[in-house]
Order: sequence, then C-alpha cells, then structure tokens
Amino acid sequence: MRAKKGVLAIISGPSGSGKGTVVGKLVKEKNYALSISATTRKPRDYEVDGVHYFFRTKEEFLEMRDHGKLLEWAEFCGNFYGTPKEYVEEQLEIGKNVILEIEVQGALQVKKIYPSAVLIFLIPPTLEELGNRLVNRGTEDKETINRRICRALEEMELVDQYDYVVVNERVEEAVEDVETILRAESMKCVRNQDIQKIFKGEI
Amino acid sequence: MRAKKGVLAIISGPSGSGKGTVVGKLVKEKNYALSISATTRKPRDYEVDGVHYFFRTKEEFLEMRDHGKLLEWAEFCGNFYGTPKEYVEEQLEIGKNVILEIEVQGALQVKKIYPSAVLIFLIPPTLEELGNRLVNRGTEDKETINRRICRALEEMELVDQYDYVVVNERVEEAVEDVETILRAESMKCVRNQDIQKIFKGEI
Repeated sequence: MRAKKGVLAIISGPSGSGKGTVVGKLVKEKNYALSISATTRKPRDYEVDGVHYFFRTKEEFLEMRDHGKLLEWAEFCGNFYGTPKEYVEEQLEIGKNVILEIEVQGALQVKKIYPSAVLIFLIPPTLEELGNRLVNRGTEDKETINRRICRALEEMELVDQYDYVVVNERVEEAVEDVETILRAESMKCVRNQDIQKIFKGEI
Repeated sequence: MRAKKGVLAIISGPSGSGKGTVVGKLVKEKNYALSISATTRKPRDYEVDGVHYFFRTKEEFLEMRDHGKLLEWAEFCGNFYGTPKEYVEEQLEIGKNVILEIEVQGALQVKKIYPSAVLIFLIPPTLEELGNRLVNRGTEDKETINRRICRALEEMELVDQYDYVVVNERVEEAVEDVETILRAESMKCVRNQDIQKIFKGEI
C-alpha cells in the first residue's frame, strides 16, 4: 500500500495574528514541510534562494504560471509572487503535511484547484489585542497600523469561506490546535478511500 | 456571550468494531453526554427507564414521532426505536458534546435534519480482526457471525457518506481519535460565527 498522503494546510491571518511564529513552530516542532514561494522581486541581503523564496526572473515566473506550475499567484507593487505546485505535491505524496502561509485571495485560489486543502484562519483573541500586537512591534507607524487593521477587517469578511478558525491566545496552544485539525483531517473519509478496500479484502 | 454549543457526534460501526467500549469511555473519561434512545420494546430485568432506554408505549412513541420530537427512528422486529430530540438539544445548548451510537441508516437520517452532526465510522483494522472479535466473544453461533460480517460489508458501502473513519486498533487511541475530531470540529468556521462578531466589535 502507498504511504498515506499528507494534508495541505493553508494558514492565513491578519498582520499581527502571529501566524509567522505559529508556522515556524509547526515546521520546527511538528516536522511540517513549508512551501516556499516563487517571486520576481529582488532578494534582500540576508535572503537565500530556495530558502526564503525561489527568486525568478519575470520571464521564468510567467512561464511557470502559463504552464500551470503554480498553485496560486498574485502581483503586488509590480512584483509577482506564487506557490510552485511541484514541491507541494512531492511532499504530500510522501505523506508529509505541507504548510502554506498566504493571504486570503491566494488561499481561496488554491482551494478551488485543490479542494482537499485545509484553510485555517488565525486570529488574535480580540481586535484590541491585534492593535496592541501591531503597536508593540514598534516597527510600523500609526497609519500603517490602521491600514493593517482595516485590511484585517476586510479579510474577516472572507473567513466564512475558510474551514477552521484558530484563536491565537498562546502560541503553543495555537500550534496544538493546528496539529489537532490536521490529525482530524487525516481521518476524514474522503482521505481514506483505501481503508474501505482493505476492509473488503480488495488490497 | 452564550456558551459555545457542543458538537453532536454520531458513532456507528459494525458489530465487533468495539464501538460500545469506545462510547463508554467517551462518556466516562471525556464527559460526553450520551443520548438515550426511546423504545417500545419491553425492558429487560436489569434495564432502568431513563438509563438504558426511555421505555414508552407504542402510542407515546408514535406521538413523539408525529410531533417531530425524534431526531431519527426505525422499526426492528415489531419494536420502535428512536432518538429524542429534546435531550440532545439541551445538552448541545449548554456546550456539551453529545454522543449518539446508532446504525448507519439512522445516522444518515440525523445528518439530513442536523447537518452539523459529525458522523464517525469505527472499524476494526481488518475484516479478519472483525471476525476474530466476533468469534472471541463466544456468545454468537457461526451463522450469526456470518450474518454480521455481511451486514458490516453492506454498511461499509455507505461509509462514503460519513465524515470520518476511525480505525479501532487500540481502544485508548480510538477514544483519543474521536476526541481529536471533536476538538477540530469545534474550530470549524461554521461553528464560530460569533468569533467574527467579537472581532468586529459587534459583541
């Protein structure tokens, strides 16, 4: 029998929801494979090709897109960003859970072509808390913070199309919550067609 | 804010899948509320009204059914069996998870009128193992065992309509698996409409 396929988890959430930290722990502590995006933007000093991003020329990127090699893509400020399909599918095939940290529009794109993807929306306990987290970062000015809060509220409108919502009160618990969701998902009947066959002696 | 509603879990599985044991532990160790069936059959010596069943006359039962007070019902060998709606809804309302151990046809009936019910199918690791468990019970003759295996195979045809499948290799793990499923379900967006409102400051 083949190894059971992994689950593709897409994590989104407003800036300040702590999704970066949660995703980091899932990769480090739970051995999830992290999908790496392709982008046409220039690498920053510390960024390494194949680690932070796959850095591609515009031509290379558009060729990937036009040959159906991206799960989703988007353009921001003149740069393209996208999720290469190959790596994700390879990891799922060998039974690894794959994690994708992308924004809501991209997540909904992936869900359309990959309905078994699990969409998880991470939120801070309250809007106030979100404001605090953004302010405490100290890296952004007030205008940026307000814009992000507006953006967060916009994204919340789309949350209905997500499968799960995880309230990130404590990081460790949020990590466990995602793990719980993925363990439950792996028991879904649609992911276990093989079991019926075993039971009937067909395998 | 109201207490978060509990989840209604329906557990089915072939005779010999160990569902009685799993359900017993969920009630004892995980504090799930167990739905008690109503029936028109006579109580056995050791059976207590309101504990093992709600024992009702045929007239009382049919009145419950005709007034929409049953989540599902069926007739076996001239006796009626059904699940009273009131108790289930009361428990869910106060935030308790409720467990219903019923057969496949009944489970699908409940899912139709209560789409948020979670259908879990419990199976032994292999068909052979199912045979062993039935034989080791020592309480049934060979013909009964064969009939039950046939019945199990029939039920398996309907498993596609279930949400989750739990392989009961070790009872403790199966109990944890059900617990994992219900914890994940409680994070489903459809069960958390309130969170959006909190986030938007509407509550």
